[in-house]
Amino acid sequence: MASSDNLTDLPTPPSCTADFCLIPLGTPTASVSKEVAQVQRLLKKSGLNYSMHSAGTTVEGSWDDVMKVIGQCHAMLHQNGIVRIQSDIRVGSRTDKKQGFKDKVEAVERLLKDDQS
Amino acid sequence: MASSDNLTDLPTPPSCTADFCLIPLGTPTASVSKEVAQVQRLLKKSGLNYSMHSAGTTVEGSWDDVMKVIGQCHAMLHQNGIVRIQSDIRVGSRTDKKQGFKDKVEAVERLLKDDQS
Amino acid sequence: MASSDNLTDLPTPPSCTADFCLIPLGTPTASVSKEVAQVQRLLKKSGLNYSMHSAGTTVEGSWDDVMKVIGQCHAMLHQNGIVRIQSDIRVGSRTDKKQGFKDKVEAVERLLKDDQS
Amino acid sequence: MASSDNLTDLPTPPSCTADFCLIPLGTPTASVSKEVAQVQRLLKKSGLNYSMHSAGTTVEGSWDDVMKVIGQCHAMLHQNGIVRIQSDIRVGSRTDKKQGFKDKVEAVERLLKDDQS
Repeated sequence: MASSDNLTDLPTPPSCTADFCLIPLGTPTASVSKEVAQVQRLLKKSGLNYSMHSAGTTVEGSWDDVMKVIGQCHAMLHQNGIVRIQSDIRVGSRTDKKQGFKDKVEAVERLLKDDQS
Repeated sequence: MASSDNLTDLPTPPSCTADFCLIPLGTPTASVSKEVAQVQRLLKKSGLNYSMHSAGTTVEGSWDDVMKVIGQCHAMLHQNGIVRIQSDIRVGSRTDKKQGFKDKVEAVERLLKDDQS
Repeated sequence: MASSDNLTDLPTPPSCTADFCLIPLGTPTASVSKEVAQVQRLLKKSGLNYSMHSAGTTVEGSWDDVMKVIGQCHAMLHQNGIVRIQSDIRVGSRTDKKQGFKDKVEAVERLLKDDQS
Repeated sequence: MASSDNLTDLPTPPSCTADFCLIPLGTPTASVSKEVAQVQRLLKKSGLNYSMHSAGTTVEGSWDDVMKVIGQCHAMLHQNGIVRIQSDIRVGSRTDKKQGFKDKVEAVERLLKDDQS
């Protein structure tokens, strides 16, 4: 069993899926669509696989790459004058199989399709 | 200014949007697609507007209706033998405008479309 | 096995523990301590068991009571002029044992104490 | 205004506060206290400032250090045989002031103390 003695040698997961919802605080308006659009542009340049939905953005890649780009989203908005940012991140990693975020939806839809047959 | 003196009179928001990700604990398998499919069936019967994505399900309605159906999802899975369930819920309410969850994505996509013109 | 056919008869869990972090949007300042203090006062009046920490507030009770008071927090702040509020709620329910939120910390601390013996 | 053209040059925030709740999936038991204890031991060795509460653990440091240690928690538990792990992370960064997680609770407690005077 791995102990945490060898902490500095511990890697981070080679792949993960993170869904994040970023909220700017202390902005003059309650709208966040401008900031979310900036986040999408940055994700596009990152080269990572991502997908926006109404409650956040899902991105997949190595743990380090995914967390770096979310941190860069914070830094970019700070540079644009937003003094405080709060994100909620749901992140999952698994070793039993390689599953992209689209596969997850399809697995559920297959089960639901059987309802109609 | 409203104080919290009149707590018992305080309503809950007449509308909200909640995005929830439900996780069963102590199950024999790491897969959750069966449980997520059951949640989708229950949401369909609720009559509320909802949409599944790879990292959760977004549902909109009154605060009470939305929270009731998420609680019923927990109860349904408990009845099916799952002894512990943890959900992450991102819930938003606003008084400045009525905005469905599809409108939010469209507002961002309009901004991104301008990039290409 | 319970199906979701009897949706309207489904209860919500008789007990749960919810940890929530409430964020006001479009406020003139990036500070949220005033709003968090108002939330604490409302929780105190609710009669529910709760505990504040730096990243949120944990509250326990029946699903309906817990979700009602969080919704009332949103409504109270809306009444005070905040037009948009976003909360992240981590909520858990379990049927295998009755465990208050203090018991959870103690269970971990017992395991850690063994490290020193 | 910073554009996202210079993505590769974008830093991540020099400081942040993250509160995370880690959930192992597909484990034989619904208890997570053993895993949470392992996480606490790893955090202790990290040298970062952290604090456990009943609904998660708060840790502060640079964005990269904080996200690395949370990723190492996932990797450590995977090495111990847990095939799937899901974490919810609430992470905040701000440029207007340096505020440790203990300061946040004290700011609210000062406001609440005035209630009694």
